[in-house]
Amino acid sequence: MAKTSQGPAEMSAILAAIGDCVQPQLDAVERLFHQELRSDLSCVNTLVRHVSRFRGKMLRPLLVLLSGKACGNLNDAHVVVATVVEMVHMATLVHDDVLDEAELRRKGATINHLRGNEAAVLLGDYLISHSYHLCSSLDTPLASRAIGRTTNQVCEGELLQIDNRNNWDLDEETYLKIITLKTASLCATCCALGARLAGAGEEDVRRLETYGLSLGVAFQIQDDILDVIGDADTVGKTLGIDIEKGKMTLPMIHFLAHAPAEHRALLRSLLAGHDADKAERVRNLILPSPSIPYATERARRLVDRSRGVLRELPDTDARGVLDAMAEFVILRAI
Amino acid sequence: MAKTSQGPAEMSAILAAIGDCVQPQLDAVERLFHQELRSDLSCVNTLVRHVSRFRGKMLRPLLVLLSGKACGNLNDAHVVVATVVEMVHMATLVHDDVLDEAELRRKGATINHLRGNEAAVLLGDYLISHSYHLCSSLDTPLASRAIGRTTNQVCEGELLQIDNRNNWDLDEETYLKIITLKTASLCATCCALGARLAGAGEEDVRRLETYGLSLGVAFQIQDDILDVIGDADTVGKTLGIDIEKGKMTLPMIHFLAHAPAEHRALLRSLLAGHDADKAERVRNLILPSPSIPYATERARRLVDRSRGVLRELPDTDARGVLDAMAEFVILRAI
Repeated sequence: MAKTSQGPAEMSAILAAIGDCVQPQLDAVERLFHQELRSDLSCVNTLVRHVSRFRGKMLRPLLVLLSGKACGNLNDAHVVVATVVEMVHMATLVHDDVLDEAELRRKGATINHLRGNEAAVLLGDYLISHSYHLCSSLDTPLASRAIGRTTNQVCEGELLQIDNRNNWDLDEETYLKIITLKTASLCATCCALGARLAGAGEEDVRRLETYGLSLGVAFQIQDDILDVIGDADTVGKTLGIDIEKGKMTLPMIHFLAHAPAEHRALLRSLLAGHDADKAERVRNLILPSPSIPYATERARRLVDRSRGVLRELPDTDARGVLDAMAEFVILRAI
Repeated sequence: MAKTSQGPAEMSAILAAIGDCVQPQLDAVERLFHQELRSDLSCVNTLVRHVSRFRGKMLRPLLVLLSGKACGNLNDAHVVVATVVEMVHMATLVHDDVLDEAELRRKGATINHLRGNEAAVLLGDYLISHSYHLCSSLDTPLASRAIGRTTNQVCEGELLQIDNRNNWDLDEETYLKIITLKTASLCATCCALGARLAGAGEEDVRRLETYGLSLGVAFQIQDDILDVIGDADTVGKTLGIDIEKGKMTLPMIHFLAHAPAEHRALLRSLLAGHDADKAERVRNLILPSPSIPYATERARRLVDRSRGVLRELPDTDARGVLDAMAEFVILRAI
């Protein structure tokens, strides 16, 4: 995997490339994000400030901006939509923390741990509401419709996931449906909207949508792999949560279908049990098996598909950065 | 209060009047509501079906439709917006139940009690997401902007409320700010949008907005009064929740400011304590005091203001029903 060694180096290279490419727009997204979420109420500002401290890698705004740049020129609507998708993503993170009861996220205490579930639910609602409001400020209803449709899919994916909690018989197809809805659909919409707002033709919009969809699925598979094998200090969030919450991931699905019978039985009894060191024992069981390499290979194939469709676009700097980002998805340790 | 005797009779009269007025559109709202929330996923449909079973009185859709009718003709956009506000309201109910940890709502088990907090959070997100998506289907971004702005206010009101939990010094002004944001703002937007979509002039839009705002504040005060004095069997939801959750309401605020010193001290110690029969003891303390009549009088004055602005509109059947609805807000037992 060579996670920790290659990850940061690749990341620096990508960040440098972005600097040349969409940095002014990324800065504008940052400003708009904070400006939009400023409230007259100090209690709201305190919560927003807290959650903003552990923001992510701006993956989704980057997808909007780079997809736009890969198809034409960026305009103000790109900055608005990029800010909107970051807010949507933040909202899902905050509500995910309620769902996961995660005590750590990005090495900061989570909102629900700090202020209770109620503040976490409301802050997520506040973020999602602001994202829609900002989106409706655009002249065209195109973005609002795409974002509305996509957030529906995200919710459906999450609902399908909890409906399959502790379902040790979950098949790969349903797993892929879940992660496509809950993670990849937003990435696909980011790319499609970015392209469309730059005036791209229908074919290029579809290409970038496919790029985002494949990248999103690969991203989630890698996330799930890291939940099993990652190191909490490096990844910076509570690990083994999927296991604790009965959430089936690709390595586990593969293991339960292909490992020797006695290993499968052991994993099932571990998953059904309540051992204090459950996550650790699952990790020790799965780690030497072919199930991690299998999942890694699936992610790799998806990244290859992402990169493949990019080759059908004109050769631009933005396309180069999108290409590097796809690769980064499976190299990352965080 | 004469709650149980007058409530249902008034309700029947209002329902009959609505039948003549906006029944076809109300039926269309009902159809659109179910059509929109139908999912390909059976687990989603099960949850939606469950939550739909204990839907409310369609107050908000009625405000949209009647306000429109009071200003002109209804069109398809009214039905869409009326459906949107019902979804928004449903979403806040579902999330409120997470916040309140209420075990009963409208005599049906709440979603969070039945399926866990996670399903409740996600179902609320699913409803709110659908509401925005539906709203964005309109040709004009006017409704999306108003709904986005209003849901921001609802969240701010809820956040301000939990920030003031267990604040026995909460003043009436902040209390009114909380309930204006969390409850009345949506009622005001329903009325304003209904009027605007019927082509009303700016003055009539403002009048109906004022009507909705005053009615909304009165409605919430009455809700808060019922939480103290109501009977769980009649009201059909868990009572005394405000007290249990340290939520200050108008009767309590008045009591803590005006009751004899020893009564105030007793209420403070009751509120700060953890007695099993806390709600019952608070009720017994407040009930004979002038604080309930004070709150009732405040609600009455707001209803009078609502009805006052209506008189500046043309005399129509719709105006008559809006007038009766304002009165019903403080007569209702549920």
